Amino acid sequence: MKFEVTILGNSSATPIFSRNPTSQILNINESLLMIDCGEGTQQQMLLYEIKYNRISDIFISHLHGDHFFGLIGLISSMNLNGRRKPLNLFGPQGLLDIIQIQLKYSDTRLIFDLNFTALDPNNTGLVYETRDFTVETIPLNHRIPCTGFIVREKQRQRKILKEKVEKLNIPPEYYPLIKRGIDYTDSSGYVYKAFDLTTEADVPKAYAYCSDTLLDERYINKLTKVDTLYHEATFLHDMIDRAKETHHSTALEAATVAKKIGAKKLLIGHFSARYKDLGALLQEARSVFSNTQIANQGQVFEI
Amino acid sequence: MKFEVTILGNSSATPIFSRNPTSQILNINESLLMIDCGEGTQQQMLLYEIKYNRISDIFISHLHGDHFFGLIGLISSMNLNGRRKPLNLFGPQGLLDIIQIQLKYSDTRLIFDLNFTALDPNNTGLVYETRDFTVETIPLNHRIPCTGFIVREKQRQRKILKEKVEKLNIPPEYYPLIKRGIDYTDSSGYVYKAFDLTTEADVPKAYAYCSDTLLDERYINKLTKVDTLYHEATFLHDMIDRAKETHHSTALEAATVAKKIGAKKLLIGHFSARYKDLGALLQEARSVFSNTQIANQGQVFEI
Repeated sequence: MKFEVTILGNSSATPIFSRNPTSQILNINESLLMIDCGEGTQQQMLLYEIKYNRISDIFISHLHGDHFFGLIGLISSMNLNGRRKPLNLFGPQGLLDIIQIQLKYSDTRLIFDLNFTALDPNNTGLVYETRDFTVETIPLNHRIPCTGFIVREKQRQRKILKEKVEKLNIPPEYYPLIKRGIDYTDSSGYVYKAFDLTTEADVPKAYAYCSDTLLDERYINKLTKVDTLYHEATFLHDMIDRAKETHHSTALEAATVAKKIGAKKLLIGHFSARYKDLGALLQEARSVFSNTQIANQGQVFEI
Repeated sequence: MKFEVTILGNSSATPIFSRNPTSQILNINESLLMIDCGEGTQQQMLLYEIKYNRISDIFISHLHGDHFFGLIGLISSMNLNGRRKPLNLFGPQGLLDIIQIQLKYSDTRLIFDLNFTALDPNNTGLVYETRDFTVETIPLNHRIPCTGFIVREKQRQRKILKEKVEKLNIPPEYYPLIKRGIDYTDSSGYVYKAFDLTTEADVPKAYAYCSDTLLDERYINKLTKVDTLYHEATFLHDMIDRAKETHHSTALEAATVAKKIGAKKLLIGHFSARYKDLGALLQEARSVFSNTQIANQGQVFEI
C-alpha cells in the first residue's frame, strides 16, 4: 500500500528564499490528506502537479498564519473548479469562523459539503478513521492551542499466495474470502486452510507530524510506534533560548525526539528565515539521529 | 518624478500557468502604493525584490478572493519583520472584519498602526491625498461591490533653470522659494522674476485601474485625463456572453474603453484560466487600440 508524504512548504513565519510556509500532503493508498496549508499552497500544488480536488481531508494544526493562510484560497479554487465531493476539514474552532466570514463577504456559496470538525487540544486521541487509516491528535506546546497528528495505516488483510492458489485452480472470486480467513473447500471436499494460502500482511506504518512545539514530554509520550517523524526544527541549538521563548524546537531537539521514540526516519522543517543554507540544521540533527532528512519542497518521502 | 507600475499577478479567479492572482504596485516618486493583493503576493514581491515594508498604502477593489487573499499574509509578514510605520488600508468595510478575526485567533497584536478607510462604492471620488498624488475611486459594475481607482500625480512646481541660477550666483537655499514663484532680489536690489528663472513643470500623469467590471458608462465617464489605463480583459470577445454573465470584460471592450477615453497606453490583465497563451487577447485589443500591452508579471510600466 502506498504511504508517502509530499512536502509543499518548509518555511516558518514568512516565505523566504523560495521556501513556502508549511504544508504537506500524505498519500495513503491513493487517498490524499493535507496537513497545514500556508499561503501559496495551491500554487505549490500546481508546481508539483498535484490536483487539489483529489484531497479528501485537511488537518490544520493551529491558527498561526503560516499554517493556514492558504486554506481559504484552496477551498475557493476547489469551488471554482466545480468540486462536488465533500471535503473533511479538521482544525481549531476559530478556523470555521475565518472561512465563513470570507465566504460571506465574497458572496460565495460552496457547491460541495465542507464537513468541519473542531479539534480540542485538551482532548486528544482518535479523531478520524477511514477504511485504510486512522488519525490521532497529540497535544503540542505552542503559544496558542496547537495539535500534532499521527496518521496510522490500519492492519491490512493477509496477502494471497498467488502462485499457490493459481496452481490449485482456486477461482479468483474466492480470494477476498480467503484473505479474510475463510478456508477454501474444493469440489472433492478437500479443505485448504486460508492461513496456508496466504502470507503475512505488510506491517502497518505510522507518520507523526509535530509542528509547532516546544519540547514537552506530554506529546513525546504519545509518539508510540511511529515510523517516520516530521518534527519542526526552527532553530539551531545555539538558539535554544529563542526557541524556548517562541515555543519552538531546535534541530538537535527534533533528533532527540526521533531517537527517543525509536523512529526509523526523521524529517525536519519549519526553518527560520535566518538560515539561507540548511546544511548546519541537517548536520546538527544527524549528529544525534543519522537517518534525518531535510523536508525539501517538492520531495516525496516514503513513510 | 518617477511614476510606474509593477505587475505582481494577472490571473483571474485561481492561480494557473505560473500566473498569480491580481496585485500591482505603483511607485510614485518612491512612495509605494499597492492595488489588490491576491494570494501569493508577498512571494511575488520576494521574487521581484520589492521590500514590502516600503509600501505605504494598500487599496483593495473588492472582496473576491483573487483580489485580497494575500493581504493577511502580507500584513503578518510586515509585523513579523518589525514594521513600525503606519499602513494605510482602503477597501470594502468587510475587509477589516476579515483581518481582525484572523489577528484575534492567531493572538497577534500589530506593532504598527493599520489605518483603515472603508470605501463606499456608492459614494466615489477623492479618498486619499498626499503631497505627491491623489487617489479617486470610481464605481465598477461587478457581482459584489467593487471600486476602481485613479491615481493622479499632483501638479508639480516649476523647475529651476539650473545653469541660469548658477551663473547668477543665486544661493541654492533660494531655489525652493523661486520654484514656489517668489522673485529673487540680489544684493544690488535687482529683481529677477521667478518665472524667468524657472521652466514649466512636467505635466502630471494619471493611472486608472479597472478590475473587475462589466462595461458600464458610469465608470467610463469618470476616466478623464488618464494616461495609462489598466483594464481587466478576462475573456476574448467570442466569450462576450460569459463575460456579461460573470460581470467581466473582453479584451476588445478594454481596448474600446482605452480608445474612448483617449488613453495613451493600455495594460490588460486578469486573464481567464482558459487562455494558456495570451497572444490572441493582445491581438484582439490591439485591433482597436494599438498601444496595448499584456500586464506581464514582474514587468514595470512607466505611466
